[in-house]
Amino acid sequence: MNTMPTTSTRVAAQDLTAFCLEVMRISGLSEEDSVLSTEVLVTADTWGTFTHGTRQLRGLMKDVRLGAVDPEASPTVTGEGSSWALVDAHAAMPPASAYRAMQIAIEKARETGVAYVGVRNGGHFAAAGFYAYLAARADMIGVSTGNVDPGVTVTGSRGRVLGTNPLAYAVPAGVEYPLLFDIATSAVAATKLYAAVAEGRPIPDTWLVDEDGLPTTNGSIYPELGALMPMAGHKGYGLALFVEVLSAVLSGAAITKDVHSWVMHPDKPGNQGYGFLVIAVEQIMPLAIFKERMDGLIREIRSAPKAKGVDRIYLPGEIEQEKRDIAMIEGIVLPPDVVVSLRGLAEDVGLDADTLFKSEGEGQ
Amino acid sequence: MNTMPTTSTRVAAQDLTAFCLEVMRISGLSEEDSVLSTEVLVTADTWGTFTHGTRQLRGLMKDVRLGAVDPEASPTVTGEGSSWALVDAHAAMPPASAYRAMQIAIEKARETGVAYVGVRNGGHFAAAGFYAYLAARADMIGVSTGNVDPGVTVTGSRGRVLGTNPLAYAVPAGVEYPLLFDIATSAVAATKLYAAVAEGRPIPDTWLVDEDGLPTTNGSIYPELGALMPMAGHKGYGLALFVEVLSAVLSGAAITKDVHSWVMHPDKPGNQGYGFLVIAVEQIMPLAIFKERMDGLIREIRSAPKAKGVDRIYLPGEIEQEKRDIAMIEGIVLPPDVVVSLRGLAEDVGLDADTLFKSEGEGQ
Repeated sequence: MNTMPTTSTRVAAQDLTAFCLEVMRISGLSEEDSVLSTEVLVTADTWGTFTHGTRQLRGLMKDVRLGAVDPEASPTVTGEGSSWALVDAHAAMPPASAYRAMQIAIEKARETGVAYVGVRNGGHFAAAGFYAYLAARADMIGVSTGNVDPGVTVTGSRGRVLGTNPLAYAVPAGVEYPLLFDIATSAVAATKLYAAVAEGRPIPDTWLVDEDGLPTTNGSIYPELGALMPMAGHKGYGLALFVEVLSAVLSGAAITKDVHSWVMHPDKPGNQGYGFLVIAVEQIMPLAIFKERMDGLIREIRSAPKAKGVDRIYLPGEIEQEKRDIAMIEGIVLPPDVVVSLRGLAEDVGLDADTLFKSEGEGQ
Repeated sequence: MNTMPTTSTRVAAQDLTAFCLEVMRISGLSEEDSVLSTEVLVTADTWGTFTHGTRQLRGLMKDVRLGAVDPEASPTVTGEGSSWALVDAHAAMPPASAYRAMQIAIEKARETGVAYVGVRNGGHFAAAGFYAYLAARADMIGVSTGNVDPGVTVTGSRGRVLGTNPLAYAVPAGVEYPLLFDIATSAVAATKLYAAVAEGRPIPDTWLVDEDGLPTTNGSIYPELGALMPMAGHKGYGLALFVEVLSAVLSGAAITKDVHSWVMHPDKPGNQGYGFLVIAVEQIMPLAIFKERMDGLIREIRSAPKAKGVDRIYLPGEIEQEKRDIAMIEGIVLPPDVVVSLRGLAEDVGLDADTLFKSEGEGQ
């Protein structure tokens, strides 16, 4: 038996990919679902977005074992027009379903210029930004939204009313990286709150409200009591609500409290919804001109006068894509919590994690 | 000569409408442009959104007199597909151009389900939310964005990089009011900052950065020095940037610093851009079902547990639409600054403002 590692660990993206594929094969997922889902999760790790990368595979495989995710299901298109489609994911492997739905949106936008695809009976799709990024890779503008079981309050309430409802977009550029933006519409992602509590750190009074709906610095009351605040007060409330409309109301998915948490209810399909919007730039403007305009805008922002003490201004997604370029050459430096999660996952499915972590300890 | 009124003044919406129409007729605008623009501005006043209502007509008419707005121009469609169109507004009266462009988006969405319309050579279109609201009136989901000359910094900068770039949406409901959401992507609208400075009030340290890019409570340095902060830090920066892409990069309008301020440069067409996105609900889901789902969501939020000291939870746009219902019966209570602006406008164009303010002094 190995003791649990407490340091970061460097792995090659291809080794991490092979490990995830093997885990999913053992768990009964199809080859195609495994390939698509692995790309989603490993890409997030190459971006350094570890909270939404392979760390989540253990929970997803638990959902497979206990029933929230059906490894044998496949999404079906239940309705469509020239610029839209509705997809029933039938509780299939969520990142694979979301990947396929965004591909449908991309294909439809290629024909008419703009498309919306709504998905119901989804589960936890990991990083919303990945699906927007798929559109940017196809030289299109992509928007990706998903609803989540409620953990966030709204202006005037003390209850958990809406989810952390992520909102992501990606925009292609020319020589520059695409813009890649992915946020929780809450003041902070729940994962960051849990991390602060686990490390015994106090939280700022802008993250959480207590049982009276008043700001608190006691993070340990969540999620039993209290609720996350929306970002920027009523502005974040309104954005989270729009995510709920695009992802769930219009797709036919479960709305707010009818969503089952993928973590708390691994035995019940969550019926989360996703909304994908795509604009096919080339239909509207010559692609070279659009990219030139984007590069100009990006460079103008990067060269803006810097605030005192700041060395560099970043565009949305620039840090992530620089990390990816390095990770594809030097390997991904997985933080300790991800290593723990992957080792636990290996044990869950009866794999030897040492084959993955053969170079353990080389991390930063 | 009347002395300037210092109290609020109650006017009937139809009287305010007639006044605006007469002002625009005198200023050389077409009947249709006048009717459309008046509806935009008076509607904002009925909502109580006075910063973006008829108060702005004086500046718009100044733009007409000095050349930023061409009263004889009309927008033309320069390119289109089944789900999109690009419109050149040719510096025509901005609210009328935006109104027509959103109508094109609505008609296209009616056919294919989803549509995008981008506008270039626009000017100041007043309340972004109005155009989204047009979609909701047609039982569709509408998104409305516009770019503005830079006054807002981005994460890491001390300069004015992006505009206050408004982002608005509207969603139809059944028995309930439509959702109507309209925000500046800056921490605060410039108008609120100016109001605080005019009244000698200190501002919170979350609105403005100084010449070093550090938070300041001295509002008087803006706009010569300093810059507004984006809402919610990097999240607002990313949203403002997306508004710039949808409104200006993809429409062919001026980008960031190439936009001329409608206030500072009344002699130069501003070349602002707008982006309108519409989803025709009925194409995708039976309208009655969608509306029932929206009503359910709205009621669930309204009946959520209230924070200590809160009597009522509001949905986005609910306050505005309740105010409108009252204003249509009891008249609009124009605040003093709007009355001053309308009196000044009357003087500018040689009208007698007393015909409008015959019931002056009856305001709250």
